[in-house]
Order: sequence, then structure tokens, then C-alpha cells
Amino acid sequence: MQNFSFHNPTKIFFGDTALENLPANIPHDKILLLYGSGSIKNNGTYDKVMTQLKGIKVIEFPGITPNPEFDQAMQAVKVVRENDIQFILAVGGGSVIDCAKFIAIAARYHSHEPKMLFSGEESAKVNPIPFGAILTLPATGSEMNSGAVITVDGLKLGVFNQQNFPQFSILDPNLTLSLTPHYIGNGIVDAYVHVLEQYLTFPQNAPLQDRMAESILMTLLEEGPKTYNNPKDYDARANLMWCASMALNSMISVGVESDWSTHGIGHQLTSLYNIDHGRTLALVWAKNMRQRKVNKMDKMIQYATRVLKLTDTDQDKLFEAALNKTNEFFHSVGVPTEYSAYSQIGSDLPFKMVSRMKQLKMTTLGEKDDLSIMQVMNILK
Amino acid sequence: MQNFSFHNPTKIFFGDTALENLPANIPHDKILLLYGSGSIKNNGTYDKVMTQLKGIKVIEFPGITPNPEFDQAMQAVKVVRENDIQFILAVGGGSVIDCAKFIAIAARYHSHEPKMLFSGEESAKVNPIPFGAILTLPATGSEMNSGAVITVDGLKLGVFNQQNFPQFSILDPNLTLSLTPHYIGNGIVDAYVHVLEQYLTFPQNAPLQDRMAESILMTLLEEGPKTYNNPKDYDARANLMWCASMALNSMISVGVESDWSTHGIGHQLTSLYNIDHGRTLALVWAKNMRQRKVNKMDKMIQYATRVLKLTDTDQDKLFEAALNKTNEFFHSVGVPTEYSAYSQIGSDLPFKMVSRMKQLKMTTLGEKDDLSIMQVMNILK
Repeated sequence: MQNFSFHNPTKIFFGDTALENLPANIPHDKILLLYGSGSIKNNGTYDKVMTQLKGIKVIEFPGITPNPEFDQAMQAVKVVRENDIQFILAVGGGSVIDCAKFIAIAARYHSHEPKMLFSGEESAKVNPIPFGAILTLPATGSEMNSGAVITVDGLKLGVFNQQNFPQFSILDPNLTLSLTPHYIGNGIVDAYVHVLEQYLTFPQNAPLQDRMAESILMTLLEEGPKTYNNPKDYDARANLMWCASMALNSMISVGVESDWSTHGIGHQLTSLYNIDHGRTLALVWAKNMRQRKVNKMDKMIQYATRVLKLTDTDQDKLFEAALNKTNEFFHSVGVPTEYSAYSQIGSDLPFKMVSRMKQLKMTTLGEKDDLSIMQVMNILK
Repeated sequence: MQNFSFHNPTKIFFGDTALENLPANIPHDKILLLYGSGSIKNNGTYDKVMTQLKGIKVIEFPGITPNPEFDQAMQAVKVVRENDIQFILAVGGGSVIDCAKFIAIAARYHSHEPKMLFSGEESAKVNPIPFGAILTLPATGSEMNSGAVITVDGLKLGVFNQQNFPQFSILDPNLTLSLTPHYIGNGIVDAYVHVLEQYLTFPQNAPLQDRMAESILMTLLEEGPKTYNNPKDYDARANLMWCASMALNSMISVGVESDWSTHGIGHQLTSLYNIDHGRTLALVWAKNMRQRKVNKMDKMIQYATRVLKLTDTDQDKLFEAALNKTNEFFHSVGVPTEYSAYSQIGSDLPFKMVSRMKQLKMTTLGEKDDLSIMQVMNILK
């Protein structure tokens, strides 16, 4: 195990009465309320939240898009500054929460070049505005970590700041029961691949982290199809919701190297072709693993036997069976794994990707920097 | 899954350079340094800590005993008040850290009846003094939770306060490598039974919490004997250390009922007969499970098959085999499971225990209040 530090101060309120904790956890008389397309108005969540916010001046900023855009976030920053807002409440999925994280930093970054925040060093220096989250889509884990991804000039870029955890996150499975299967499938795959990116690397003598990752994977394999097929099953949704938060709150990544190359490639597919984030991961993952078979073999065998309960004694067959069984799981929750599912992808995909990677100065990817641009081209053929 | 709230704000610094984080995390120019019998002076830990504390005025309070005593803690409270101490640093195992937690509360509880702090309600009202911990014995998990146990008039009583988490805990496996096998065995059993108390109840539809508990158990089964038999193996000790912290930081108990009756009985064995805490748990656990076989059966089968990899198809045999295999594990790390191992225990044990339980107003124990005083007598026969 490598040396590590761990700190996750987010308060979690989980369950069908979780919203009642809202008033006591907003020690401000004025907030910015951030939300998305307005589905929260149709499904009743907006009203439930506003009831809890009685007595607090609420300045609304609706319309946050999936893969939230820098320009839109900067408009919200303007509102925050003009109204001297000292607390932000995000109601939505990962996109709305990520956007709140960026606004929390950008509003306190007084520079004429706010895009400098994507350099890493600059964003870490800021003391962000406190914010809380009410989660309506179990998927990204943003409700229990401090990272955010924002789209800037067509590129998906990360913003990191160790202090930028939600003060609290409210996880009420009931608020997610109106989601369509499409979004639930996306969320299941997103959470699953989050775990794979942290777990499926190489043996690192961190047996507890390994087994905890396996715990999340096995539970998603079990509860994922259940909640996908029975969208009104509160218990299955609750289990998915907690899996998604635990998948990316650093519990399984402490003391080990992570991969994240499937995300590195997937983000470009989203910005090039407007494919949902979770769906890009399902497209890339197995092909990515095949490119790095030698380096991934030990962990893939562990994954195949412990998580997928495969029993073949031939390593090569086990490797391939694990990829196939994982892809079948993605299919079982309605998420395709072949490029042919998306008509907008043309044969020039590899070239577009390489050009994009060069633009981002990505030369190699992966936990061992063992994924080259040439190999990425192979993945995308 | 039941509704829950979760908040664990302790910063963890883990690894062989973890001590270097000490100065930056003590924003005070004067602290109380709390430690135990002085073994930290013999094994070099004291010097390492003092090197990091250069420039800070350190008021020492050594001599904290195992199962820390109320009277001794109140002497430390006097020192804290006389010196206007605003930060406490505990260097030691669970006893020293628990004592720091009590001092942190008691020093800010201005009443002529400090024993009222054991009533639950009173201790929760206090805004405790911030404190940090440097862990030298992996066992209790106190380094990553907010609870403490203090011995008062011969009784072990809990003190709880949601704000009373360590600000930080430093976990350097090197600081534990001089421990004798006796203490390592105690620590392994303590951590293992912490998990069993939270996990081995009844099916609660919380599959992720179940599997995470199983992760810790399987890792302790593997790494426990390794670190017991090879006390200089840094990696095995690191894995034990992280297991012990994860065993009692609320991660596996959110949304489920826990048992804690083995602890309820074990604490009395410690105070009646001065038997180490971990050792009392090994004495009680299997006998306790046998008393509640019907209620425990479902989870015991899950434990037997998933964790212990037992395969018998007869439920009764599986139940008994799981108890035996668990006891064998305790033996493998030098911890006995029969009362005959302790000459101080006489045949009057059941009567002494019942009298003690009545004194503590304990009528029933367990997650379903299904362990009566009569059954406790059976356990102790």
C-alpha cells in the first residue's frame, strides 16, 4: 500500500426523510439555487425543496445543461457576485453538482482569466463558497467528492480543490424514482466503471481496497438490473444510490494507483459526438483493456473469479470472458458497447481523437502510462 | 436499508511519512500531549513526535492506563483548564485516544457533576476541544470515530458526541512494529469482532454494507495471522491498521441495526477480572451466537459461506462450523476462547455478571433485544 491522506467531510443524509435535514444545514438567509432543465418542477422535487427553504431568500439559476459549460457557469458566477451569495444549493445530478463546484471556486477567484482555474494549481488556491447538494440522479458520485468536470471550448476539463466537498448531500431515493430507464442505465454504468478505473490496475498489496471495490461491483451487478427493470423499487434504488456515492468518494482509491484512461477517452467522445458520459465508458472500456492485456492480466483474473465468478482455468479465455460478461451487464441495463449504436460516429473517429488528444497534450494514459496515442487509435477503430 | 446520516470528518494521514503532517495540522502554539505507560519513550516514537512539535509549547500528561479511568482523566481536565489548552494530541492506542476524547468534552463541561457526561444527553451538548491522534496500536478504531469508553467506579461507560472526531489521525505502521504479538492478537480480534457486531445480525437489505463488512473480515483473516507471525512485515501491518480503522468508522453500519451485545458482556469481564478488551470478546462471541441461533441463522449462513468459504449444506452444521472456524482464527493469533484460560474467573462469574448488569440497568441486549439476562447467564456458565 502506498502512503495516502484521506479526508471526506461531506455530511450524508440518506433516506425518505432526508430532505427534512435541509433547513438546519443552511446557516444562511440567502442562497443560490442551481438546477437543470426543469424536470424537478414536473416531478415535484422543486416544491418539496422550496417547502424546506421557507424563510430563506432563494435566487434561482435554472437551466444547467448536461456536461455543464464554462460560459453558463460564469453567468451564474456573475449572479453570485451581484447578490453577495455565500451558499449554493445544487439540486440535480452530477452535472448540476459539478457546476456548483466550479461556481463555488470561480466566484472567489478574482482574475481576468478564469480559465486559469483549469490549470490545477490556481483552483487549489481558492477558498470556495460553501455548497450543498440534493441528488436526483445516482451516477457520478459528485455528491461525495471534491472534483468537477466542466466543458470549456468543447473540451471536458477537471477542476480540483481539496476543500470543495459538498457541506452536505441529501440522498432520497424517492427523488430518483421518476428517472427513465435510459438515465438509470447510464448511472449504473458510470458507477461501475468508476470502480473499475480504480480497481482494475495491477496488484498493489491493498487487499481491503480491492475487496471493497469488489463489494461495490458485485452489488451493482445484483441491484443494477433490479432497479433498471423495476424503477419503482425503493430498496433497489437506495442500494444503487449508495453504491454510486461509495464508488467515487476515495474509499477504494486510497493507497493505490488508479487508471482513468477510459474516462480520458470517453470524455472526448462526449464532447465530439454528444454521447452521454456513461455510454461513452461502455463503448471504450473492454477495448481499452484488450490493448493492455499483459499489464491488466493479474487484476483481470482476480476480477473474473472474485466478482464475475468465472471459473475457466485458461488465462486468455478468462480475460476475454470477463470483458464479454461485463459488456453483457452493460447491455442488460440498456447501454450499448459498440460504436455502430451511434450513427453520428464516422470512420474518422480515430483521427479526430488523436487530434483532440494532441490539443489536450495527452501523450500517454493509464496507471502505468502504458496507453499510447497509437493504442488509443486501435481502441477506436 | 434504513434512513441514516453519515459524517466522518477525520483527516487520515497514512504511511511511513505520515508524521510529517503533524506541524501543519496543529494551528496552536500550546498543546496537551497525552500518552500511556511510556513505551513511546523506549521505542523512539516520543522523540519522533517531539521533533515534529518543535516551536509548540508541549504540556505532557503521561501515564494513561488501559481502560482509562475517570479520575485520571479528570486530573488531565484540571491541567487543560489551568493551562488554557485549546488542542490535545493523543499518542497511543484506543485507551489514550478514548481518554483524549473524554478530556476534550469534560474540560468544556462546567458542572459540579462531570459524571453526568455518561448520561448521553449531557455529553452531546458540549462543544469539545479539538484533538488529534497518533496511533500506535491498530485495534479499536477510535482514531476514526467519535465514541469513547471510560471506566467509572469500576464500570465501563460510553461517551458520545457527534463533534468529537479526531481532527486528524496519523497512522504510520512503523510506529506499531515494536508491539508484542500479545497486543497484535488483541487488536486483530478487537477489529474482527467490531465488524461481526455490525454485520452478523439479520438480513436488512443493505447488500453493500454487508459486502464491505465481509471485505474487512476476509482481509483480517488473511492479513491477521501474517502480521501476527511476521511482526516486522510493514505491508501486512499496514493492511491490519487500515482494516481496524475501517472496522469502526460507521462505513459498514450506516442504514442497519447493529448488535454490540458481545461488547456489552465483554466490558464487564474486563472491569471484573482485568482481562484485555479484545480477549473478552473472543471469550464471549461464539457462546453468545449459540444463544440466539434462530435469529442469527440467516446471517450466520451468509458469513459461513461468503467469508469463511464453508460448504456444508446442513444449516446446523454450517452454523457450528462457522463458530468453530472463527474461534480457530482467534487461537491462530494467540487469543483464547475459553474461560479456563483465565485463572481469575471463578464459578461465580454468571452471578457477578447478573449483578453487574442489574447495576447498569441492562435488561436485554442485542439488535433485537433478544438476549436476556438469563441467556447471558448461559453464555457465562
